[in-house]
Amino acid sequence: MKLYDWAAAPNPKRLRMFLVEKGLKVETVQVAGDGFVLTPEYKAKYPQAMVPMLELDDGRQIGESIAICRYFEELHPNPPMLGRDPYERAIVDMWERRAFDQGMTAVAEMFRNSNPYFKDRGLAGFANPVPQLPQLVDRGRASLEKFFQRFDEQLGKSRFIASDVFTLADCTLYCSIEFAGWVSVSIPDDCKNIQRWWTEVSDRPSAKA
Amino acid sequence: MKLYDWAAAPNPKRLRMFLVEKGLKVETVQVAGDGFVLTPEYKAKYPQAMVPMLELDDGRQIGESIAICRYFEELHPNPPMLGRDPYERAIVDMWERRAFDQGMTAVAEMFRNSNPYFKDRGLAGFANPVPQLPQLVDRGRASLEKFFQRFDEQLGKSRFIASDVFTLADCTLYCSIEFAGWVSVSIPDDCKNIQRWWTEVSDRPSAKA
Repeated sequence: MKLYDWAAAPNPKRLRMFLVEKGLKVETVQVAGDGFVLTPEYKAKYPQAMVPMLELDDGRQIGESIAICRYFEELHPNPPMLGRDPYERAIVDMWERRAFDQGMTAVAEMFRNSNPYFKDRGLAGFANPVPQLPQLVDRGRASLEKFFQRFDEQLGKSRFIASDVFTLADCTLYCSIEFAGWVSVSIPDDCKNIQRWWTEVSDRPSAKA
Repeated sequence: MKLYDWAAAPNPKRLRMFLVEKGLKVETVQVAGDGFVLTPEYKAKYPQAMVPMLELDDGRQIGESIAICRYFEELHPNPPMLGRDPYERAIVDMWERRAFDQGMTAVAEMFRNSNPYFKDRGLAGFANPVPQLPQLVDRGRASLEKFFQRFDEQLGKSRFIASDVFTLADCTLYCSIEFAGWVSVSIPDDCKNIQRWWTEVSDRPSAKA
């Protein structure tokens, strides 16, 4: 199998962290072209035009980070990164999705609507120009404030975000907060639980994935 | 256990469809107040303030539709609605997420930024007014066009969206397209594969869930 990746992009990093935590090595192909775009070869191979994508030896493709993680988890169940019983598997899924929808998505909205590289590329994968909307920068910032409050509250109750063990939901949360640095947003001073968690997770080898 | 639901909302319907397909009945509590808002009692119980939410008998809560479906799938594996082997489980997850991110989310953006009930509620769950952005209606419409193209292409290759059997990804797709009707968007005339699929799925008892 081959993993198609973009080393600088924040979203695929959660999969790379997952693979490090699992102790798995996968042949990886970088598909970044110049100026924050994917190479034409990759877009022809995979018209969804997103990273990451896993290609199996028979040519079948699995897209979406969470789906690829789920595939590896089934092939290599240990250490479990998606939960250890039915309830925990649901809870990991829940926090993973919230970290993505409430964290990563809010940062992406701020970044995509302000960064000069994305001028007229307000939506991913459109051939026609889509203007940036500066109002979405403020909206994303407001969403992020709520995101930090909610996740800080949860990390006041639990060592890691979904459980007492490290899971994929922590990978997604870590990548979302790291990505927030791209738009100069850092963990608020009063979010002591996130800060405690961040310090601990930053020391894991997977944080450099 | 108790399921907290909002019968008129498009997102929880995918879980209701899933439960009908599984043949499961769960005690359900409606939490809609007047004017497209959740009741204060529900928001106090569940500060994420979203539906659906499953409360277990010991008080533990599972939020996010997909996480609740995963929990039921583990307790009641048949008929399988999340895939029958590791590859298919990844692919169902992939199409379910795409149907939500590319379909449901685009419709929600159009709806929330144009419907008078959502004036100054441009973001969910904010106490302060968040103005609607009319530009997001056009942006959502452009996203939906691409969504229909991509899903039509896939349904040209496969009876259901992720597989030759009906899965949760079909539930999410069905609810997304039904929700598009709320903003007067229907399946484009040239999307013959989606139309074929829509006719078939509309006949399932779960379509009325």
